[in-house]
Amino acid sequence: MAKQDWNRPTHFPLLPNQRRIRLLISYDGADFAGWQRQKGVVTVQELIEKALYVVLKEEVNLFGSGRTDAKVHAVGQVAHFDTSNQSIPVEAFPLALNPHLPHSIRVVEGELADEKFHARFTSLSREYRYYTKESVHYTPFERGRVGLVGKLPPLELLNGYAKVLIGTHDFSTFSAAGDQSHSRIRDLYESEFSLEPSPWGGDVLIYRVRANAFMMHQVRSMVGTMLQMGEKGEPVATFEECLASKERLKAGRTAPPGGLYLWRIEYA
Amino acid sequence: MAKQDWNRPTHFPLLPNQRRIRLLISYDGADFAGWQRQKGVVTVQELIEKALYVVLKEEVNLFGSGRTDAKVHAVGQVAHFDTSNQSIPVEAFPLALNPHLPHSIRVVEGELADEKFHARFTSLSREYRYYTKESVHYTPFERGRVGLVGKLPPLELLNGYAKVLIGTHDFSTFSAAGDQSHSRIRDLYESEFSLEPSPWGGDVLIYRVRANAFMMHQVRSMVGTMLQMGEKGEPVATFEECLASKERLKAGRTAPPGGLYLWRIEYA
Repeated sequence: MAKQDWNRPTHFPLLPNQRRIRLLISYDGADFAGWQRQKGVVTVQELIEKALYVVLKEEVNLFGSGRTDAKVHAVGQVAHFDTSNQSIPVEAFPLALNPHLPHSIRVVEGELADEKFHARFTSLSREYRYYTKESVHYTPFERGRVGLVGKLPPLELLNGYAKVLIGTHDFSTFSAAGDQSHSRIRDLYESEFSLEPSPWGGDVLIYRVRANAFMMHQVRSMVGTMLQMGEKGEPVATFEECLASKERLKAGRTAPPGGLYLWRIEYA
Repeated sequence: MAKQDWNRPTHFPLLPNQRRIRLLISYDGADFAGWQRQKGVVTVQELIEKALYVVLKEEVNLFGSGRTDAKVHAVGQVAHFDTSNQSIPVEAFPLALNPHLPHSIRVVEGELADEKFHARFTSLSREYRYYTKESVHYTPFERGRVGLVGKLPPLELLNGYAKVLIGTHDFSTFSAAGDQSHSRIRDLYESEFSLEPSPWGGDVLIYRVRANAFMMHQVRSMVGTMLQMGEKGEPVATFEECLASKERLKAGRTAPPGGLYLWRIEYA
């Protein structure tokens, strides 16, 4: 079970006559400069807030479970907002919002939430997936949706590395330059590679990873390092030393954003 | 084994000092007005001919195995051209051409062919696939790549219809308005539906069909009719009557182009 790293509120007040709505959202990140609203670029948060304004006739703030970077996808992003609009049944939000959104963003579910719920602060765990294909098996149907490697390392070796990451560790090795986290310790619950056939041809290497939280670029840095070490056939002990070193310079390349999917957020 | 419907030449003269090159090509049809060169729109044939001009320093005509309509995809389109350029090894054509093509078109293979080969006239069979998903399981990752239906009919019923199509039949029921074919008789070798999981979530219904040749819109008309009859639970006998009627008005809707893939062309 997940524990939380720092003291967070457990109650997020709701104004009288307001409802809190929780949305499940899927998007193809290729078209967007990430989740979070920013001046001068198109982001997922901004487009959904605009669609909400059309539907609710009221400006609302949409709180996501976390940011995703430019070009990163989401299958199960979760976000919430408070509204005094009482006319739209909660389950009708997908139908109401989707016509006002590009096809690369879909609102999948609407659900009623309460004062104990906050999309970001009450999550117990987050699951990401990273998709990779060998360059020679690349098809136009996977562009922007998989990371490419020259040669896929043996699955067994990759899973040797992947297991090393499970547990409570200081993940400084895989932190980004300029990372501001006050702690780089995270609890990693699942970490596994598998090969799955794609209906568009060839196999996709899928890395599934679940933790209480991740630092910026952490998943892409872990995946990039494992693939690079795997291509060189490095023993598992070398990857263990790499994690233990807590030195960013020991990590490999950061895998490209197009292969990364925010897959699922778990709440109590 | 396939037989040919009409008298075709079996020899396609090659000029002295020319090579005939056969290409295997994959493309995401969403961005293009189909295969065939047309004024005022972007087509796959035109873009590959332009890339060939850059690489060969010579204008060539590219002959495809057949046209694909606007938005229709190809995993295994085959095309050939004759060139007096002798400097590029045949297996290097993918590497030479791909940098001059958008990522939605990939040249997968180059192979040497001879005077007995013509991408269109010497094919023995063509395989198409049609991909469908239920609207509720639609994800942004399949946009433009699957046809959508309200509810998937039972697989067994669909395969009851699909079997009816196997064999030598007059396919007039599934011909397009204004079809100019002198015969609407085709030999259909394979016709089957299956369900396959997608790495992006949910199952994809895949219809595989192989014949000596197809008329314009024939596959989309057959698929659309079977899905529509399946949704209504019509018995297989009704579909048999529909095929036997040879009346276009007895067919259902034509399935949208984005779900269709030219999968493989078979040659002797």
